Amino acid sequence: MKLLRDKVISDGIVLNNQVLKVDSFLNHQMDPVLMQEMGKEFARLFAEQGVTRVLTIESSGIAPAIMTALELGVPLIFARKQKSLTLREDIFTEKVYSFTKQETNEVTVSKKFIHATDRVLIIDDFLANGEAAFGLARIVEQAGASVAGIGIVIEKAFQPGGKNLIEAGYRLKSLVRIAGLEDGQVQFVEVDEA
Amino acid sequence: MKLLRDKVISDGIVLNNQVLKVDSFLNHQMDPVLMQEMGKEFARLFAEQGVTRVLTIESSGIAPAIMTALELGVPLIFARKQKSLTLREDIFTEKVYSFTKQETNEVTVSKKFIHATDRVLIIDDFLANGEAAFGLARIVEQAGASVAGIGIVIEKAFQPGGKNLIEAGYRLKSLVRIAGLEDGQVQFVEVDEA
Repeated sequence: MKLLRDKVISDGIVLNNQVLKVDSFLNHQMDPVLMQEMGKEFARLFAEQGVTRVLTIESSGIAPAIMTALELGVPLIFARKQKSLTLREDIFTEKVYSFTKQETNEVTVSKKFIHATDRVLIIDDFLANGEAAFGLARIVEQAGASVAGIGIVIEKAFQPGGKNLIEAGYRLKSLVRIAGLEDGQVQFVEVDEA
Repeated sequence: MKLLRDKVISDGIVLNNQVLKVDSFLNHQMDPVLMQEMGKEFARLFAEQGVTRVLTIESSGIAPAIMTALELGVPLIFARKQKSLTLREDIFTEKVYSFTKQETNEVTVSKKFIHATDRVLIIDDFLANGEAAFGLARIVEQAGASVAGIGIVIEKAFQPGGKNLIEAGYRLKSLVRIAGLEDGQVQFVEVDEA
């Protein structure tokens, strides 16, 4: 997605070989027009998948996901993240480990909102090791529903999440794929490889 | 806002005299068309205020706030909530107490994203005691910026937040104002009182 790629080039900050900071347009300050265009692009990419619900995880996934849900004309559910959890029968829950924060969170979704007939599109802002995406997919599968696809805003293609999701059989589409962050520069995966 | 009021009547669940559950359309599952209409209504209500930025707090405020920012053509910033915090010079921080969760969080915004010249519209999903709204307003004021207004999706008008914000001089607009939750029923503040 050219608009997003241009924004990464102009406003992204390479902190080191692993970390790209995008807090000026994606995960602290947000550009609403960019969010709307992302929503349109995700809706286009998954138009044929019979999506009935969009699922994301708080907090940075919510804005691109609500725009996607609006374009597709379906509800959005955002999963909650919490440190610890009292066992409850009315929620689906999965443990998700964050390499960035080096902590495990319980990710939860109310059983009221995903049904066995649903085709769920998972949206998230970043894909690195794929822990969050796999956790959300397991929640969809707990519900007996199917994963219609996984849409990612920025994929760090030098980390294993994308490869692992595709090998597990998921339909993965990333708006921008980053090959590396060497020498303070963002290297993109060439479009024809994507 | 009639659409929202109708949704509260049809889909809100009164848990007790204090708690209205709206997780089917506002703070867990979200109706994207309703979010868009809320964004349009907030943009209309604050059209004359010269808003340059919208500010909300993760997580449930993000969807109505991004729609408002889109309508107004300005960026959105969402404040982060965390339990504890290492002191850092590059962020504004305020303590916010949650009566619902009975815990105090540090609410943070990067100093990069609010400037002294900004007119900031604060958006949040619920107003009860006003702790979050006052915390966000103090962050705006720390930046030397001005609060253009405070837009709330659902105000529990039987709790003191609304009255206190107005007495403190803030321009407060709530899309729906609830007078009480007695006998398992939602009582609304009559429109001509709003």
